[in-house]
Amino acid sequence: MNTHILSIHCPDERGLVYKITNVIFSHDLNIIRNDEFVDKDFTQFFMRTEFSGEFKSEVFIEELTAILPVASKVKLTSNHRKNIIIMATKEYHCLSDLLVRHKFNDLHANILAVISNYSVLEELTSKFDIPFYRVDSADISREQHEEATLKIIGQFDPDFIVLAKYMKILSPAFIARYSNRIINIHHSFLPAFVGAKPYHRAYERGVKIIGATAHFVNEDLDEGPIIAQSVISVDHTDSAKEMARSGRDVEKNVLAHSLKLVFNEQVFVFRNKTIIFD
Amino acid sequence: MNTHILSIHCPDERGLVYKITNVIFSHDLNIIRNDEFVDKDFTQFFMRTEFSGEFKSEVFIEELTAILPVASKVKLTSNHRKNIIIMATKEYHCLSDLLVRHKFNDLHANILAVISNYSVLEELTSKFDIPFYRVDSADISREQHEEATLKIIGQFDPDFIVLAKYMKILSPAFIARYSNRIINIHHSFLPAFVGAKPYHRAYERGVKIIGATAHFVNEDLDEGPIIAQSVISVDHTDSAKEMARSGRDVEKNVLAHSLKLVFNEQVFVFRNKTIIFD
Amino acid sequence: MNTHILSIHCPDERGLVYKITNVIFSHDLNIIRNDEFVDKDFTQFFMRTEFSGEFKSEVFIEELTAILPVASKVKLTSNHRKNIIIMATKEYHCLSDLLVRHKFNDLHANILAVISNYSVLEELTSKFDIPFYRVDSADISREQHEEATLKIIGQFDPDFIVLAKYMKILSPAFIARYSNRIINIHHSFLPAFVGAKPYHRAYERGVKIIGATAHFVNEDLDEGPIIAQSVISVDHTDSAKEMARSGRDVEKNVLAHSLKLVFNEQVFVFRNKTIIFD
Amino acid sequence: MNTHILSIHCPDERGLVYKITNVIFSHDLNIIRNDEFVDKDFTQFFMRTEFSGEFKSEVFIEELTAILPVASKVKLTSNHRKNIIIMATKEYHCLSDLLVRHKFNDLHANILAVISNYSVLEELTSKFDIPFYRVDSADISREQHEEATLKIIGQFDPDFIVLAKYMKILSPAFIARYSNRIINIHHSFLPAFVGAKPYHRAYERGVKIIGATAHFVNEDLDEGPIIAQSVISVDHTDSAKEMARSGRDVEKNVLAHSLKLVFNEQVFVFRNKTIIFD
Repeated sequence: MNTHILSIHCPDERGLVYKITNVIFSHDLNIIRNDEFVDKDFTQFFMRTEFSGEFKSEVFIEELTAILPVASKVKLTSNHRKNIIIMATKEYHCLSDLLVRHKFNDLHANILAVISNYSVLEELTSKFDIPFYRVDSADISREQHEEATLKIIGQFDPDFIVLAKYMKILSPAFIARYSNRIINIHHSFLPAFVGAKPYHRAYERGVKIIGATAHFVNEDLDEGPIIAQSVISVDHTDSAKEMARSGRDVEKNVLAHSLKLVFNEQVFVFRNKTIIFD
Repeated sequence: MNTHILSIHCPDERGLVYKITNVIFSHDLNIIRNDEFVDKDFTQFFMRTEFSGEFKSEVFIEELTAILPVASKVKLTSNHRKNIIIMATKEYHCLSDLLVRHKFNDLHANILAVISNYSVLEELTSKFDIPFYRVDSADISREQHEEATLKIIGQFDPDFIVLAKYMKILSPAFIARYSNRIINIHHSFLPAFVGAKPYHRAYERGVKIIGATAHFVNEDLDEGPIIAQSVISVDHTDSAKEMARSGRDVEKNVLAHSLKLVFNEQVFVFRNKTIIFD
Repeated sequence: MNTHILSIHCPDERGLVYKITNVIFSHDLNIIRNDEFVDKDFTQFFMRTEFSGEFKSEVFIEELTAILPVASKVKLTSNHRKNIIIMATKEYHCLSDLLVRHKFNDLHANILAVISNYSVLEELTSKFDIPFYRVDSADISREQHEEATLKIIGQFDPDFIVLAKYMKILSPAFIARYSNRIINIHHSFLPAFVGAKPYHRAYERGVKIIGATAHFVNEDLDEGPIIAQSVISVDHTDSAKEMARSGRDVEKNVLAHSLKLVFNEQVFVFRNKTIIFD
Repeated sequence: MNTHILSIHCPDERGLVYKITNVIFSHDLNIIRNDEFVDKDFTQFFMRTEFSGEFKSEVFIEELTAILPVASKVKLTSNHRKNIIIMATKEYHCLSDLLVRHKFNDLHANILAVISNYSVLEELTSKFDIPFYRVDSADISREQHEEATLKIIGQFDPDFIVLAKYMKILSPAFIARYSNRIINIHHSFLPAFVGAKPYHRAYERGVKIIGATAHFVNEDLDEGPIIAQSVISVDHTDSAKEMARSGRDVEKNVLAHSLKLVFNEQVFVFRNKTIIFD
């Protein structure tokens, strides 16, 4: 059975659900799941509808556009698997988790390639028959390094770039090319410990809970829209190294969970926040 | 501003959202929040709509009934505070939590009375100016005890009865009188440790997590529809008594949370399970 | 049975456990529970021993002091209830939770008085027969306000001061008077949202988890040693106000839990962090 | 630096910590970490001491035995990696997690072999250069199947057998051969949903939280000593299949965490419960 996902984001006005479901009903489509949310502060309307049935998508979109406010964003996805590039540095846990899920068809995405500034993860990646590209950042400028990286990415035209513990900071220019299409896992409970060495700083501060945050990347480091967060308890017996070790399990789960939401079109972004229908 | 909640539960069929929102739209009402769910196994449709605006409720309900399947349950609530009776035995933590929330207008309900088979909690209840009825169960049969209890409840005609650690088992006849209107807090993570002394048995079994469950009461003890559950970690250093102490904080929070959901019309019951729009 | 708690904090050196338990053994005392921790970064030794038995405490302490390093801190507590002052402002949830626990002998402390800069909580406090002191901060300087507050506190000579949502910032001079004896509940998951309006800022940032932190108060606002933290999930449907409401349940539980640990001599403070034997 | 772990379990009596640390001190050893626990119900003493230094282990053990009660169990581990066999059926998530951790030296164990009743996981296992043995259970009796399995295991003489979603029930005879050396991951929050199809039954019961339990296997199915448990929230929108999918992430983390504890000698077993120094 072919399933479709209709995503609508527009200024809110009276009767939107009625008007939209009228179009769906008139095309004799079968709603499987429907979620709406209205942001009252900014009078914005968000709707995600999963449906099945035969229909002419051009006519359908045309009719929807006719009844929606001018500034509406309408997206119709016929449930295809996303194409992604994974970028990583030296840590294996997030990358391996995604490679294994991919192998067993649990990722809802095709991993087109893995790019890294080191070669540590090449053997692992090769085991899963995914192309591995090392772009060494030594002895070249950040501009040159990013140019080389973007050239590889450009060959693949991915839907999303997943930073699976990629430890280099991307330039605003790089990020702008893939706006709301780069997902990062940050190894802290944002906004706590923005920036480098969060586990070390968590240890220094003596916190009793640590966490991880998956978020879209925007120009301000660690300030993009948050998709998912999770935490675990720590205590005085945990060194910074042990916190990092425990944190890795949280990181990989939060990243995988956030990707499932994004790839399944369950995530809207508005004003640096996410609306998630899960 | 007057807010209304429309709750609909009916067999699912194509076009329901469209037809229902058409009626709402035609009355020029303003949807604040809308949630739907379809149980595909049993093709049941559940919808909860919060809206504001002036309207004639009889005409509105009539028009809805006309477009809905025959077996539909439609409920329109104009956001009034529920009236409740609390039943307790000797433990103070759940009762005091509800009394305090009530005093500071955070319970979304009027506590009409507290009924107990002991007098331990009378002084506490009196502090908050709530009538306290002791129905001693010594020297009388369960039938007599329940009859006396029901007589008091009958004077108040409550919307809900809250069992805030009421340690006597209610008869099927009692329960049938208030079907899906009695809410209990059970001091275990159901279905683990159904029945008596759950903390003691959790200790005996050596579990690493304990919990509490708020549920509607039906004929089978601890088998009613679950509304909310929560857990906390324990370890080998915790005695059964210490588990009980830690568990009390979980119990009172889970009970209060479940009451908020129920009183705010966010909970549907179907086939011994709950659908909750939170 | 009389239970005693021996707390030792000293520079670490070889054989400390042996030497200390030798003293305990020679006095024919019965160890109920024993915990040690060594901070390897700073070679510090922490030990907490719960024991029972008859003994001469002066001789015992003398013998311990003789075998311990010069800079040792030794504390012997014969399990008495702590005396505390609670300071609050307008919010009822933490104060009421402590008053109720106190009434039912679950706080391990005597509440000597409640002090507030408002009168909102006076009626509640009076219900539980605890003296309530309003120290209005309007029209006077912070110095004057603190002086008046300290004067009341001074009458009671409390072991600890509990800030149960006291919304005024204390001066370094005030804090210095009660070093590591003031416990605050902060309504965020520190170090996230240090300072004012944490729920509002959590909402603005779009986080998916919020929390609360109980900590000792030191000169730097919200920077003191953390005792306990806890979290709950939120999503895009939660307004800042709803986050605050959900957060209140976390706040009161975290505060009560941290007080249990502190009052039971389970918490050591070293270099702005806590070592907790729980 | 060579680290040693001393594990002692014996009837409790006065002065044990003093006597044991006296022996450690007299050998001029350096205690890194020390944990004790006394089970008061059964007057049992448990102690785990991590220490470093040069010493003659025979003399050391002899001296310890001399001062300990007759029925003491003393174990000295010089921190070697455990040897393990993994048994699995068709599901990849737990096995892959352990294979990846093993490859990157994060498992604290050598995986000697993987045994399965199906061939589904052979390719995955081979990627990581671990011997894979398929023991088909079709057309043979359970006795024959277990005999064949035990024959393979016997070749390797493992310290532990890890059931990483092994979906066949082992006979008491098999289990008796590896008492407290077989670790299983059960896909429910025991004792809830003991037995088959726990996610299906969790869905049917309408629970709001699901979980996983790692435990030692004993004769009674799912009744062995619990090592670790963890949970996640579910709601009415989750089908049994979706619960199973979400649960897999919990299962693999709980299993890996429990193995870390066991392999690091942090777990004692007594009367079907675990004492864990973590």
